[in-house]
Amino acid sequence: MVNYPHKVSSNKRQLTPSQTKNFANRGMSFEKMINSTNDYYLTHGVAVIHKKPTPIQIVRVDYPHRSRAKIVEAYFRQASTTDYSGVYEGFYIDFEAKETRQKTALPMKNFHAHQIQHMEQVLKQKGICFVLLHFSSYQETYLLPAIDLIHFYQQDNGKKSMPLDYIREHGYSIEQHAFPQIPYLDIVKQHLLGGKTI
Amino acid sequence: MVNYPHKVSSNKRQLTPSQTKNFANRGMSFEKMINSTNDYYLTHGVAVIHKKPTPIQIVRVDYPHRSRAKIVEAYFRQASTTDYSGVYEGFYIDFEAKETRQKTALPMKNFHAHQIQHMEQVLKQKGICFVLLHFSSYQETYLLPAIDLIHFYQQDNGKKSMPLDYIREHGYSIEQHAFPQIPYLDIVKQHLLGGKTI
Repeated sequence: MVNYPHKVSSNKRQLTPSQTKNFANRGMSFEKMINSTNDYYLTHGVAVIHKKPTPIQIVRVDYPHRSRAKIVEAYFRQASTTDYSGVYEGFYIDFEAKETRQKTALPMKNFHAHQIQHMEQVLKQKGICFVLLHFSSYQETYLLPAIDLIHFYQQDNGKKSMPLDYIREHGYSIEQHAFPQIPYLDIVKQHLLGGKTI
Repeated sequence: MVNYPHKVSSNKRQLTPSQTKNFANRGMSFEKMINSTNDYYLTHGVAVIHKKPTPIQIVRVDYPHRSRAKIVEAYFRQASTTDYSGVYEGFYIDFEAKETRQKTALPMKNFHAHQIQHMEQVLKQKGICFVLLHFSSYQETYLLPAIDLIHFYQQDNGKKSMPLDYIREHGYSIEQHAFPQIPYLDIVKQHLLGGKTI
């Protein structure tokens, strides 16, 4: 396993509160790995998949003389869809990515009710929909089909955590590589197209 | 033709500068009509197509005590892709919408070089890609396939305006309805799928 270019240190010691910032950086790194993977797919003509911009509620904008518009009051809004979408050989691809430091389960509070609803809508439209889950303690990454996330979520409306065992049973492990780092489209191609052609 | 719920007045009189604001509202209305159309498609299970959030470059965020994070300095960024994307019966749908008050042509400065490049990438991946063009003076709307936009753009790298005659020749007129207001998927179904199945 090669961690290039975002080497993430192992997580075997106890951390003090002042070290929390390291966790934030580690949280970024999975997103960076995915963005880097999507860049690879784009530049190599494999797929066109982008992260959507963060939804922002803009309250006030200043127009300084001779300068470009400056937003001076705005707030983050909760995303109503998933973070990533695009096209791969004509297929609509839609996914969300989550990272956790927990070792045995993923807290379902990572997913909002309208994100689950969005995934249901995408599946009804025959889109390819899934989540990429990263367990940073083990540096393990899984692709879990949206239908399995939805089934688990529906058991108790997302109150309990999803055990790693459930993810291993229903999902697919993605081995990290140098280029691309998280080759999730290999899994999509092998397991999620289900004989579809376009 | 029913303009509900965004009635747009006819444009047969000369406007004074103080009336410019009306134009801004009219400018919004085409976007609103598309958003309303997408809402219709979503709630009726026809398609899942969303407008992407506006890309913002965040420079400074305050964290007021007991309040949610407040963005206090940010700037608008140029979009690197198109505004709308989603899935319709498994097909990846990707488009940009533009409105003009001009009567005989659409200024090509409405499209950025990387948006044109994005459309080329989407077409290579067999995505369904087009632009919706609205001539507010006539209340006429056209769907122009991305390939025809790209061909025109390549003639002079987007310097000159695209004549309405070119749009009429290569595009498809979309009649406004009550529900949905801009039924562009009818055109997609009839003319853009080209025998594709999924």
